[in-house]
Amino acid sequence: MTSSTTPTHKDRVLIFDTTLRDGEQCPGATMTLDEKLAVAELLDTMGVDIIEAGFPIASNGDFEAVAEIARRAKRATIAGLARAIPADIARAGEAVRHARRGRIHTFVSTSPIHLAHQMRKTQDEVIEIILKTVSQARDLVEDVEWSAMDATRTPIDYLCRCVEAAIRSGATTINLPDTVGYATPDEYRAIFRSVRERVPNADQAVFSVHCHNDLGLAIANSLAGVEGGARQVECTINGIGERAGNAALEEIVMAIRTRGDVMPYETGIETTMLTRASKLVSHATNFPVQYNKAIVGRNAFAHESGIHQDGMLKHTETYEIMTPASVGVSKTSLVMGKHSGRAAFRSKLEELGITLSDNRMQDAFERFKALADRKKHVYDEDIEALVDENLATAHDRIRLVSLSVIAGTHGPQRATMKLAIDGRVVTEEAEGNGPVDAVFNAIQALVPHVADLELYKVDAVTEGTDAQAEVSVRLKSGERSVTARGADPDTLVASARAYLSALNKLSASAVRLHAQSPATVS
Amino acid sequence: MTSSTTPTHKDRVLIFDTTLRDGEQCPGATMTLDEKLAVAELLDTMGVDIIEAGFPIASNGDFEAVAEIARRAKRATIAGLARAIPADIARAGEAVRHARRGRIHTFVSTSPIHLAHQMRKTQDEVIEIILKTVSQARDLVEDVEWSAMDATRTPIDYLCRCVEAAIRSGATTINLPDTVGYATPDEYRAIFRSVRERVPNADQAVFSVHCHNDLGLAIANSLAGVEGGARQVECTINGIGERAGNAALEEIVMAIRTRGDVMPYETGIETTMLTRASKLVSHATNFPVQYNKAIVGRNAFAHESGIHQDGMLKHTETYEIMTPASVGVSKTSLVMGKHSGRAAFRSKLEELGITLSDNRMQDAFERFKALADRKKHVYDEDIEALVDENLATAHDRIRLVSLSVIAGTHGPQRATMKLAIDGRVVTEEAEGNGPVDAVFNAIQALVPHVADLELYKVDAVTEGTDAQAEVSVRLKSGERSVTARGADPDTLVASARAYLSALNKLSASAVRLHAQSPATVS
Repeated sequence: MTSSTTPTHKDRVLIFDTTLRDGEQCPGATMTLDEKLAVAELLDTMGVDIIEAGFPIASNGDFEAVAEIARRAKRATIAGLARAIPADIARAGEAVRHARRGRIHTFVSTSPIHLAHQMRKTQDEVIEIILKTVSQARDLVEDVEWSAMDATRTPIDYLCRCVEAAIRSGATTINLPDTVGYATPDEYRAIFRSVRERVPNADQAVFSVHCHNDLGLAIANSLAGVEGGARQVECTINGIGERAGNAALEEIVMAIRTRGDVMPYETGIETTMLTRASKLVSHATNFPVQYNKAIVGRNAFAHESGIHQDGMLKHTETYEIMTPASVGVSKTSLVMGKHSGRAAFRSKLEELGITLSDNRMQDAFERFKALADRKKHVYDEDIEALVDENLATAHDRIRLVSLSVIAGTHGPQRATMKLAIDGRVVTEEAEGNGPVDAVFNAIQALVPHVADLELYKVDAVTEGTDAQAEVSVRLKSGERSVTARGADPDTLVASARAYLSALNKLSASAVRLHAQSPATVS
Repeated sequence: MTSSTTPTHKDRVLIFDTTLRDGEQCPGATMTLDEKLAVAELLDTMGVDIIEAGFPIASNGDFEAVAEIARRAKRATIAGLARAIPADIARAGEAVRHARRGRIHTFVSTSPIHLAHQMRKTQDEVIEIILKTVSQARDLVEDVEWSAMDATRTPIDYLCRCVEAAIRSGATTINLPDTVGYATPDEYRAIFRSVRERVPNADQAVFSVHCHNDLGLAIANSLAGVEGGARQVECTINGIGERAGNAALEEIVMAIRTRGDVMPYETGIETTMLTRASKLVSHATNFPVQYNKAIVGRNAFAHESGIHQDGMLKHTETYEIMTPASVGVSKTSLVMGKHSGRAAFRSKLEELGITLSDNRMQDAFERFKALADRKKHVYDEDIEALVDENLATAHDRIRLVSLSVIAGTHGPQRATMKLAIDGRVVTEEAEGNGPVDAVFNAIQALVPHVADLELYKVDAVTEGTDAQAEVSVRLKSGERSVTARGADPDTLVASARAYLSALNKLSASAVRLHAQSPATVS
C-alpha cells in the first residue's frame, strides 16, 4: 500500500489546540494560571496555529488566563470562547485584545434536539441570533470563528442556511463539530462536501473539524473532514476533553506526517516536541497517559515479543512506521550521579527541553546534589520531578522544616511536624488513620483550612526501592481546585510537600482573585 | 444524520479477543495464571466468540494457561497461536485439545519488507510454508485460522495467492492484520473487497480484521474492514497490546451497537459487562485506563461544563448517545458502613459482579468489618480492593504479623517487621532510604530473594485522607514477572502486604513451573 509517488503539493492544515478550553473543561483537569501559561508557551513554541486559551466569561480566572496568554503569545493566534450572548462576546473580545492575533470563537446549537430541549428556539430565531452575534464579534476582531454545535445531528439544509448566515455576518472560520462523538468518517466527510458545495459564500471561510472520541473514531473523523475540505483541525494534547475526549493533537499530526503519501497535507507542528507536551499536560492535569496511548504512551515505541524484537534488530522498518526521535523520545540516556557537575546538569536540562532562570537553576542544582547523595543513579524522570517541584515552591508562604512519623500495624499512626509559615516556625503532633492521614492532620492543625482532598496518588518516579516518590495531591476549596506535587525518597515527606504546595497554590490564587472585581457570569 | 430506518437484517460479527495473547505480550502486561483464568472466565461469560488464550510454544506458563482455559471455557472457542513451524503447531494443538471448540491460529509474514529482512525467504517459499503448516494444523483441529502478518504492506496479487493457498489447505478463518498500524480506513476496506472478489475460494472462509492503533485509526480501520466483508474482529479489552495497542473491544462493540442505523451488524457481547472487564484487565496488568478513554474511562459519561450539564438536565439525549447503564456503569450507590450486615455485603458483591466461595466470602466479610470500623464510608472501590487482596492471599506461605515504621525528614528511616513464614514467626529491624525502602529491606532480610522491583505505585482507592491506600508492586525474577496489590489505610502496611503477596505469587509459580518438564522453545 505504500505509494512511492508522494504528492508534491501539500495543503496546509491549521492546528487549533483546545487543551486549555475543551480539555481543561473536563472533570478533574482544572489547571492553575501558571500551568496554563506553561502549556500555552509550549504550544506556541511548537507551532500550534491557534490556541483556544479559555472561556473568558466563565470566571475571572479564565478571563485572566486568556488575557495573559494573549499578551505573551509570540506566534499563535489566541482564541477565546463565547456563547451566542452579547456579554460573552464582549468579554472574549476584551480578553484577546492584546494578542498579536486575537480570535473570538462563538457558537450556537443547530440540531433539532438541542433547539427543542436546550435552547427552546425556532430555526429562524437561531438564524437571527447567528447574524447578530457574529456581526458583534466581527466588530471587535478581524478573526471570527463560528461553530454549529451538534452539527453532525443537524439536517443538512438548515446547517447550510446557518453557515451561509455566519459567513455573511463576517465569520472567517466555520467549525462543524461532532459534539457528541456520534458521526462515522463517511458521514462526516459527506457533511463537509455538501456544505462546501451548497453554501454560495463557502469559499470565504476556512472550514474546521472538531471531533469527540466517544466511539473511538475521533482521529478517523477528523481526517475524513479534512478530506471533505476542512483545513483546520481542533484537537487537544493527549486527547483530553469532555467525556471520551477530543481528537488527540499528536495522533492527527503524526497520521498526516506518516501517511503523507495518501494525505497530501502538512501542519506547522515541530513534532519532536510532542512527547514533552504530552508530559507537561499530563502533569498539569494529573491525568495519566495510558501506556499504550498512540504516539506518546510509554509503550508506543516498545517492542516486547521476541518475534517483533527479532524483526526490529534486523531492520527497524519491519515494525516501526515512524521513529521515536520524530516525536521527541530520546534514546540516549546520560545518567546523572553525585559526580555530575553544574555544566552536565545544565546540558541535561537542555536535552530535556527545560529552561530555568539563574535563580531557579541554582535551586534545582542544589536539590539535584542532595538527591544524588541519597540515590545512586539520578534518571531523567527524577530531574523532571525535581524541577517541577522547584517551579511550584518558588513563592511559598508555608515551608516544611521537619517531619517525623511513626506508623505500622499498631495504629493510630502519629506525625510530628515543624512548619515555617511566613518565616515563623510552628510545631504540631497529630494522630491519624494511617501515616498519611496523620501527616495531613498535623498540617490541618497548623494551617486550619477548608478544602476537599480530591486526589492523592503516589508514583515511584524511577525504578527501585530507593526511587524518588512523587506524590500528587488535588485540593478543592469552593470553586477552586489545584493540583500539586512533591518529590522525595520518603513518601511521607513527599506527601507533606505535595499537600503544602497545594495549600500554597490555593492561597496564592485566593489573593489573586480577591484583588479583582467579580465577573459577570450570565 | 440519525437514520430512522434501522436495517432489519443484521449480520453477526464474531468477536475474537486477544487480551491474553497480543495484550499480555506488551511490555509490563504479564499476568499470572490465576489472573488469566479470571479474565478468560469473564470473557467467556460476556459472550466473546473466540478467546485467544496465549502462545503455547512460548513457555510452559503460556501452554498451561491455554490448556487450562481450554478445559474451563463453557461457550467460547479457545485459540492458541503458532508460528509457521511444525513444533509450534503441534504444541498449540495439544494446548487446545480439551476445549469444546479449539482453534489453531497460525501466521506467517507476507510483506516484502518482512520477507527480505526477517524471513529471508522468496514468495514461492512462503506459499509452500503456508500449504504445509495450514494442512498440519487442519489435521489436528477442525478450526484453523491463518494470518498474513503485515498484510497491509503486502502487494495485493501476492496476498491473494497466499489467501487462496491457506483456504485450499483448510484454513476456516483468514485474518489480514494491519500489523504496524499503518493503514487508513479506505485502504483497509479496499484490501478486503479485493481479496474477497479475487480469491476463487474466498467464500469458504470467514475474513478477520486485526488492527493496531499507532496512528489512532484502529477502530475506524476495523469497521472499514467489516464493511469490506470481514465478519470477525480481533481486539482487546482496554485496547492493550503491542506498542499503541490493538483495537479496543469495548469501542468496536459499542460503535456497532450505537450506530446500528448505518452499520447493519450485531455482536454477541453482553455490553453491561464491559466496565467490569475493563477494571479486571486494568487490575491484572496494572495498566491504568486513561480517564477519557472511550466507553470505559472514568470520565466517559461525565459532564462537567455548565452548558453540558444544563443540557443533560433538560434531556439526556442532548449529549448522551449511549447510556452508562448499557456498559455496566451503575448509578446507584449503596454506600456500606459498620452497620451493614452479611446480607447487605453479599448483595453488594452481586451488584459488583463478584462471586466468592463461602470460605472466601467469610474472609472478605471479616476484612470488610475491620475496615468499616476504621473508615466511615466503605465505597464500592474499597470493597473491590479488599476482595482482590482476599483472592491473592488465599494460599500464602508468608504472612505479615506486624509492622512498625519510623520515618520523616531525619533519615535513615527504620522498619520493624514480624512475619509468619510457613507458620514460623520471625522478626527483623531494617533501615532504608525512605520508609518504603526500609520496609522492603526488612522483607529482604527475612526472606532473602533475587528479584527486580519493576513497579511501585500507590493509589488512594477512594477519596479522603482516611481512604484505603492500594499499593501495586511488580517483581521480576528471571523470566517471570508478577504483579500484586495490597490494601490498607496505612500505605506502609499496604506496601508490605503488596510486596509479600508478590513474593508469594513468585514462589507459587516457581513451584508450578518446577514440577513440569522444560518447554521446547524454538
